[in-house]
Formats: sequence, C-alpha cells, structure tokens
Amino acid sequence: MSNSLALRRRTFLNFGLLGAAVSAALPVKAFAQAPANVSFIAPTADNPIRINFNENALGMSPSAQAAARDAVAKGNRYAKAEITQLHGKLCDMYKVPKNFLLLTDGSSEGIRALMGAYSRLPKVQLVIPELTYGDGEHFANLYNVPVVKVPMLADWKVDVAGLKKAVDGFDGFSIVYFVNPNNPTSTVTPASEIEPWVKSKPDNTLFIADEAYAEYVSDPKFKSMAGLIQDGLDNVVLLKTFSKLYAMAGMRVGFAVGAPSIIKMMKDQVAGEKLNYPGVTAALVSLDDEPFQAYSRASNLESRKILASCLDKLGVKYLPSSTNFMFFELNEPIRAFQKKMATRNIIVGRPFPPAMNWCRISLGTPQEMAYVANELTKMRSEGVF
Amino acid sequence: MSNSLALRRRTFLNFGLLGAAVSAALPVKAFAQAPANVSFIAPTADNPIRINFNENALGMSPSAQAAARDAVAKGNRYAKAEITQLHGKLCDMYKVPKNFLLLTDGSSEGIRALMGAYSRLPKVQLVIPELTYGDGEHFANLYNVPVVKVPMLADWKVDVAGLKKAVDGFDGFSIVYFVNPNNPTSTVTPASEIEPWVKSKPDNTLFIADEAYAEYVSDPKFKSMAGLIQDGLDNVVLLKTFSKLYAMAGMRVGFAVGAPSIIKMMKDQVAGEKLNYPGVTAALVSLDDEPFQAYSRASNLESRKILASCLDKLGVKYLPSSTNFMFFELNEPIRAFQKKMATRNIIVGRPFPPAMNWCRISLGTPQEMAYVANELTKMRSEGVF
Repeated sequence: MSNSLALRRRTFLNFGLLGAAVSAALPVKAFAQAPANVSFIAPTADNPIRINFNENALGMSPSAQAAARDAVAKGNRYAKAEITQLHGKLCDMYKVPKNFLLLTDGSSEGIRALMGAYSRLPKVQLVIPELTYGDGEHFANLYNVPVVKVPMLADWKVDVAGLKKAVDGFDGFSIVYFVNPNNPTSTVTPASEIEPWVKSKPDNTLFIADEAYAEYVSDPKFKSMAGLIQDGLDNVVLLKTFSKLYAMAGMRVGFAVGAPSIIKMMKDQVAGEKLNYPGVTAALVSLDDEPFQAYSRASNLESRKILASCLDKLGVKYLPSSTNFMFFELNEPIRAFQKKMATRNIIVGRPFPPAMNWCRISLGTPQEMAYVANELTKMRSEGVF
Repeated sequence: MSNSLALRRRTFLNFGLLGAAVSAALPVKAFAQAPANVSFIAPTADNPIRINFNENALGMSPSAQAAARDAVAKGNRYAKAEITQLHGKLCDMYKVPKNFLLLTDGSSEGIRALMGAYSRLPKVQLVIPELTYGDGEHFANLYNVPVVKVPMLADWKVDVAGLKKAVDGFDGFSIVYFVNPNNPTSTVTPASEIEPWVKSKPDNTLFIADEAYAEYVSDPKFKSMAGLIQDGLDNVVLLKTFSKLYAMAGMRVGFAVGAPSIIKMMKDQVAGEKLNYPGVTAALVSLDDEPFQAYSRASNLESRKILASCLDKLGVKYLPSSTNFMFFELNEPIRAFQKKMATRNIIVGRPFPPAMNWCRISLGTPQEMAYVANELTKMRSEGVF
C-alpha cells in the first residue's frame, strides 16, 4: 500500500470503529455534490434493494461519472494513452516499477490469468480456506488444478496453520489463494498470521492475496501484502479492483501487483491491457477523488452501524465486518431466508457452503440499511426471522 | 448471418461499388443527428489524424453514446441483466440457441480463449496466411502452439490451397485462423474457396473465421461463415466485434458463434461474461440503430472513394478494399513513409511483414481522407511519395 493510502487509512480510523456514532463524521461538506443515484425509493418487485453482490450502492463519484461520460465520445478509439497513464499512476501509488503491475478486466481476470498460468506446471494444487470467494476454486476446476479446501476455525476464521499444513504436505507447486478481508465472512486475517509464512519463502508456493475489500478496513491487525512485494518478495501477488470502494463493479477495472516473473506469466494469459475507455478514465479520476473515497468509506461505516445495531437489538450473531458487507447467523437455511427477503423486495446474498445457515448482506446506502433493519425487526416480531 | 443483416447488405449494394459516386447516397436525412465527434479540425502534432488502428473515426452512434452515458450512472453494478439481454439478442440475430454464443471483451479475447483452449491438446498447430492480423500468431506463441505461416499469392491473396496443404500434411490438430475480409490487405477471400474445405469436415481441424470487417463488404464473393454454423457444422467458429462498423473499439464488446462444444471450451478460458456496463448498453442500442449503420457504411465508402481516387490519380497501386482501411504500395519501406506522414501529423499503419513496402491506411472521416489525399498529392509533387 502506498504511503498516501496508509495515511488516509489512519485518518479514517478517527471516524471510530464499528458501532461508534459516525453520521456526524460524514464528510458531506468536503463532498458537496452527492452521486445522482443515491436517493432512496422504497423497493418494489421491479426495483428491489440489491444487496447480494457486494456492489457499492452509492454509484461512482460524480467526478468519475463525468469523466466516464466524457469518455463515451472517445469510445470509438482504443484507450491506449489513458491505459498507459493509469498503469503509470498505479505503479507510482504502489511504488513499483512498470513491470510489477498488470491492469486487468476486474480482479476476476487476474485470478483466471494466474490459474491459467500456473495450471501449466507439471504438478500443482490450489489451497484455499473452505469458506471464501469462489473464483479461485472456479478457475482451478476449469484448468484441472486439484483444489484442497481447508476447514474453517471457530467463528469461520481462516485456518492459516491448516493452509500451511496442506502446502507442506504436498510435493508439487502450491497456490494459496486467500481473500483478506475474507469474503463472505467480512473478517480480517491478521498479518501476524500470514506474513511470517510468506516471508519464510516456502518452496514452490505462490500466495495470491486478493485484497478487494482492503480499503474498508479499520482493523490494525490487517496489513496489505503490497509491502512485501515492495520489499522484493517474489512469491506473492496482490489482486486489486476498482469495483468496491470506487463503486465501479460494472466498469471492469482491476490490477495485479507482483514480481515481474509473475506479472509476465499473467500477461501471457490476457488479451492485452485492453480496458474499456469509460472504465479507464473513471479509474484515473477515482484515484484522485479523495473526498469521494472518504464519503464512500463513511457511508459504508454508517450502513454497517445501522445493520449491526439492528442485529444487536435482535440478538442475532454476526461477525465483525471490515468490508462493505456483513455475515450473520440465521435460525434457518439461507435458501428459506433468501425467499422471505425476496418477497419483501430485498435481494440478499446466495448460499456460501459450508455456512448454510448464514446470510451475507452487502451494505447498501444508509437509507437502504434502515429499511432492511426495519423489515428484519418486523419479521422478528412476526416470528419469521 | 441473419436475414435482416443479409437484407441490409443487399440494400447497401445499391449504393454502388468502390469508385461509384456515393456522396449523394449518404443517408443524412435518415440520420438527422450527426455524431458529436465527427467535425474536422486540421491535424496538429498533439491532435494528429489517427488512421493506424482501423478504428471508426465517426464515434459511436448518438443513440449508443446516449445509452452508454446513461449506463455510467449504473457502473457501480454488474451489468447482469443487460448482458443476458445482449446475449439473447445476438442469438436471435444469428438464429442460434443460447449455448452457441459467447460474449467476449472484444474479439481479441475470443482469439486468446480459443488458443488457450486448443493449446491443451496433445499435438496442435496454428496455420495462418503469412500476411494477416497478428493476434492468432501472438496467442499461439504465448501458448506454445507452433505456427505455420503460408506465403501469400500474387497481390497478397490468401493461398487457401496452401493452408489446406499445411493441414493435410500434419498428423495432429490444426487450427486455421483466417480473417475475412483480411487485415491488412482489405481483400475478400471468396466463399467458393473456403466453404468446400470447411464442409468437407477435415479431421482434427478447427476453422476460426474472424469476420471483424464483414459489415463493410459489398463484394458478393464474400459469405459469412455464420450460415455453416447455423447448418450444424461444428468445426468452425465465428468471431465478431462491435469495434468497427459500430465504432466501439474502446468499449470492448465482441462475441463468438459456434457449436456448443467449441463455445464451452472458450467459456472455460474467460472470466465470465463480465462486460462493462456502458459497452453492453451501447452494443444493445447499436444493433437497433440501422440509420447509423447505414451512415457508417456510407461514410466509409465515401472515404474509400476519396482515397482510391487520389491513389488512382497518382498511379499508386492498391488492393480492392472490402473493409474500413486500404492497403497500397509504396516506393520505399513503410518505416520511412510512416515517419514522413507523422511529420505531417498523420499516423498511418505499422509495418506488416512481409509487405514491407506497403502501407495500411484506416479510413477516417471523408474530411480526414480529403486532407490526407491532398497531403499525398503535395508529397508526390515534391517527389517524396
């Protein structure tokens, strides 16, 4: 992580941790113009509250939207100059040379490219926590890479020792894919548990650190893997996306940071850095729009507070969230709960085995979360939640 | 090809072939609102005439631009519903079931996916004409697939018999990648030369038909391979892009049509149909914007006429163009000519070996082509062209 990002994170900590009153801290003055698509309308069947894909309900920053709209007029051209500019800007941010970074079509493409590249090794396995984002396993299956799933610890914690054991006991190449903070659990795996392992440079091991949600973290136990890459470790690759904090899921911009040997292998698995013009320009502007970043974080924290406060009142167990979603326990299978919520025009997360009695709710706008909290409270009083 | 496309093509033929007077036929009345970025400004070093990447200088249709701009406000969401809609619409257009089509991030991703998929076969080669678009060879190299290049015939014609010979003499799997009309030669390979070979179903052979420029064709010798796929042939896959006629190079939307077995293999090599929101909506609207399609074709034909007329006057040899670019002979190496043109703020195509004394000029707007024609005429009178 760049110093400026680290600085912003420290500033952010002053907003207070989960549960503290943060509405007063919403930097509305610094962010004079609210995004156009943030107003609240009570959900209907045609226009439900969509809190199922960890999207950012705020919409892109107005400055990024303006830049993307302007870019549409250039959409007949390849965005060659702007792609080079974005690549350079990210290298500066991460303080790495140009060959340490690859732009990708969201971070999904990064995961695919890595699995594609490493599947060509003679003997390779993917090691993952059992409860995590599915793309690692998905692409491993497609590329015929055997997958070892390590069961979770209590409260769905990632079993780092278990991951290590699975690597140590294998005589081929191991890819360890871990999302931090983890999805769908929303929790941080402390740097103190992972860093010593990565730094010990285990033979034939690649660590894929998917930090899609890192910008939301206020837990000091978290540390980005970027520092290890800057320090010269060549057994770890960082995956990032503009989909979350910057609210750009549909704009398809992500990137990977790692040693040139890894980036080269990835590059061979993608059809060039051919990102779309509106997405590239939106990303460029988003990196500079610090007021929106602060607003995006504060809004997320406010939404988290509203949902947490509701779950606390109802006595529902949930995991501490360091992301833009929360994971809480149901007294029934998620499939049944999903259906109940859908009838109330609220689309919640899908089943995440093996946590089949847990629900992931992406944090929508504070107004959406107030609505959802109210529905959950009504459901509790009706005995259906 | 769909009937409606075929119908439009027939209508288009009425505009007349290369060299006929077409300006009067420009459907300006049917296309009341000209794209915003079509006005002509004399080129400068900072703002040269870019006729090097076969982009469409008109910019997207105003209706597609409006849709893409509207979509920016939704760019925080994955474009799931619209992607499904686009997929369905294209299947309807091509009269194929849903599993015959895959949306891709431009057609480059389709080429990469195919090379990635087929590189996993035990013994495989890529057979290409020596002078063609480079992505097939590029991805074959990346995936360690040996490439057999078949020399061109006179006037840079594709040697179909030579391609066939290279396939017949190989005891593994052959991928035949051919672009039709071809790039950079701009010429059509007659269906009569390819179809019998494809229909003969040679063992262990896949034909990749890259028809990026097919919408510009008025030569009746051309026939899309779509018909063979509709007829049930499972040894051919069609690659298409919205980059050219629809002026969407920077919007990254393409697709592949082929038998489900091929589409499935490709799908396993891409990170989902995760196209960008502005691109998907622009594509949806572009398919319906027939006035723009007609305008785009007519403008291209007008530009082709201007350049052809200039080259005729100067006695410069060029190949008959069925695309949005032209290929003409120089009396010096292309590198030297490129530099001369760059000093006049005109960026022309790169070297295309083995045609090292030929130049590819993408057809810009008619005004740009008039400017270029004037510069070429001046250069000739100065003895430098």
